[in-house]
Amino acid sequence: MDALVALVARDMQRVNETILSRTGSDVTMIPEVANHLISSGGKRLRPMLTLASAAHFGYPGDGHVKLAASVEFMHTATLLHDDVVDESDMRRGKPAARMVWGNQASVLVGDFLLGQAFKMMVETGSLECLGILSHAAAVIAEGEVMQLAAAKDLNTEEATYLAVIEAKTAALFAAAAEVGPVIADAPAAEREAFRLYGLYLGLAFQLVDDALDYGGQSGQLGKKVGDDFREGKITLPVITAFRAGDVAERAFWKRCIEEGQIADGDLEHALRLLEKHDAIAVTIARAHDYGDRARAALAALAPTPQRDALIEVVGFSIARAY
Amino acid sequence: MDALVALVARDMQRVNETILSRTGSDVTMIPEVANHLISSGGKRLRPMLTLASAAHFGYPGDGHVKLAASVEFMHTATLLHDDVVDESDMRRGKPAARMVWGNQASVLVGDFLLGQAFKMMVETGSLECLGILSHAAAVIAEGEVMQLAAAKDLNTEEATYLAVIEAKTAALFAAAAEVGPVIADAPAAEREAFRLYGLYLGLAFQLVDDALDYGGQSGQLGKKVGDDFREGKITLPVITAFRAGDVAERAFWKRCIEEGQIADGDLEHALRLLEKHDAIAVTIARAHDYGDRARAALAALAPTPQRDALIEVVGFSIARAY
Repeated sequence: MDALVALVARDMQRVNETILSRTGSDVTMIPEVANHLISSGGKRLRPMLTLASAAHFGYPGDGHVKLAASVEFMHTATLLHDDVVDESDMRRGKPAARMVWGNQASVLVGDFLLGQAFKMMVETGSLECLGILSHAAAVIAEGEVMQLAAAKDLNTEEATYLAVIEAKTAALFAAAAEVGPVIADAPAAEREAFRLYGLYLGLAFQLVDDALDYGGQSGQLGKKVGDDFREGKITLPVITAFRAGDVAERAFWKRCIEEGQIADGDLEHALRLLEKHDAIAVTIARAHDYGDRARAALAALAPTPQRDALIEVVGFSIARAY
Repeated sequence: MDALVALVARDMQRVNETILSRTGSDVTMIPEVANHLISSGGKRLRPMLTLASAAHFGYPGDGHVKLAASVEFMHTATLLHDDVVDESDMRRGKPAARMVWGNQASVLVGDFLLGQAFKMMVETGSLECLGILSHAAAVIAEGEVMQLAAAKDLNTEEATYLAVIEAKTAALFAAAAEVGPVIADAPAAEREAFRLYGLYLGLAFQLVDDALDYGGQSGQLGKKVGDDFREGKITLPVITAFRAGDVAERAFWKRCIEEGQIADGDLEHALRLLEKHDAIAVTIARAHDYGDRARAALAALAPTPQRDALIEVVGFSIARAY
C-alpha cells in the first residue's frame, strides 16, 4: 500500500484540508461528531482510488480533490448511519459516535455530510460525476435495506449475499475509481476499466472484512471478532458452514443467528464449525478471484506508477485476511 | 389553497407518477416504507411551489416535475429521519414508519430517497438547481442539529429559534420556490423574489406549526397537541411565556421542559400560562409578519394566475392557526 500512499500524498493533503474546512459549522456538534470519525485513522482507500485514477490520466485540475473528499464524506455518512442501524458500540477501536453524542446526532451529522458531499460535487461542474455518485448513494442505501431484510435468515442465497455486498460496499469503490477518469475526460473504455477495477476490489475487500469478522484465516479471536455473529448478519462464512452442516450444526446456527440466543462458548463453537467446513478459506478464495479480476481490469491500460500501485494494492487488501 | 392546487393539478399528476416510479425497488421494504409516508396525505405544498414558480415563467419542459419530485423526496427523507431523532410514534395521524418497520429501515429508506432525489436533479442537467438543493440539504441537517443542541434549554435566544426554523424548514421552501424560476431560466431578480417568497412562507409555516402544537389560537386540545412540550422542544410560544413568567412559572417550565418531569395536568397548566402571556398570539403575529413579507416578495412581479395563487396560499398557511 506504501506505493499508492506515496503517489497520492500531496493530493491527499489537499483532500484532508478540504474535509476539515467542509466539516466546519457554527453548530459545534457537527465538527465534533464528524472529526471523531474522520480523524480516527481510516485508511482513506476510497478517496485514494479517485486521486490515483485521475492522476493516471495526468489530470491537472483540482476537481479530483473535491470528488475524493465527497467520496470520503459519503463513506463517513454511511458509517454514522450504519452504527445506528447496527446498534454498534465501537468503530475503529473507539466508541461509536452514537455512544458519545447519541443516535440523533449520528443520523443528522450523516445527513449533513451527504449534503456537503453533493455541494462539493456540484462545484466540480461535472454532471457525469454527479450522476455516478448520486446513483451510488441510492444503491448503497438499497444494499443496506437488502441486508436488513436478509438479516437472521440462514436461507439467504449466496447470490443475495453477493448482491448485498456489491451494493453496500463495492458500488462506492466502483464510483470512486470511475469519477477520477471521468473528471480527467478519459475515453469511455478506460473509464469502464477503472469502474470494474473498483467494483471487483470492493467485492474482494468486503469478503475479506467478512472473513476477518471471524478472525480471518488465523482464526485468532481479536478484539473485534464476532460482531456479525452477535448481530445475526448473514455472510459467506456462515452461509458456507450452514449449507455444509449436519442437522445438529444447522440447529446451532439457527439458535444463534436466527433466534439470537447466544451463550458463552458459542462463538468459539462457531469458529470450530467454520474451520471444519473450510468456510473462511472458501470466503478468502472468493476474494482472491475478485482480486484477480480487479487486476485484470487494469492490465490493458498504459503502465503508469498510479496504475501499477492500484494493481499492487489489491494484494494488500486481501493479505489483511491472513 | 384550491386555486394553487387546480393550477398545478396536471403537473402534480406527473410528479406523483414520478414519485411512484422512483420509489420502486426489488427490495420490497423500500416502496413499502416510502409509500407509507408519501401516500399518507401530505399537502405537497413544497413541490407545488416548484411547479407554480416554473409555470409563472411559462416553462415548457419537464425539469420542474423532476425537481418537484426531488423536493418531496428530500422532505420525506427528513420526516423519516426526524421521527427517529424525535422518537415519534405518530406522523400524519398514522403510526410513524419507524413504529412499523423500525428505526433501521427509516434511516436507510431516508438515505435511499435522498440518493434518488439527487439522481433526478442530475437528470434535469441544471447544475444551478443541484447547487441550490444540495446546499438546502446541508442547511436542513445543520438546522436539525442546532435544534438538538438547543433542546431542553429555556435560555435559548429567540434569534437562535428563528435560525433553527429558517434552516430546518424555511430553507427547503426557499429552495423549492427558487428552482422553478432557475430551471425556467428566469432573470436573477425574479429568482431572488421567489427565493424570498419561499423563505418567508416557510418561516410563517413553521411558526404556525409551533403554535398549533399547543392547540393554536383556539387552545383546543386536539389529538396531536403537546408533542413539543413532551419532547422539551424550545419554540416561540415557550420562549415567550418563559420570559414573561414569574419565579413559580419559570420553575414550572424548567421542571417540564428541562428536566422532562411531566405529570397529569401539566400540559393544561402550560396552556393556561401561554394564554396568560399571549404567547400563541405573539407567535401567530410573527407568522403574519413573515406572511406579509412573502406576499411583498411577489408583489412587483408580472401578475399571472400562478403568482396570484402563490400570494393567496400565504393566507391559507396562516389560517391553519385559528
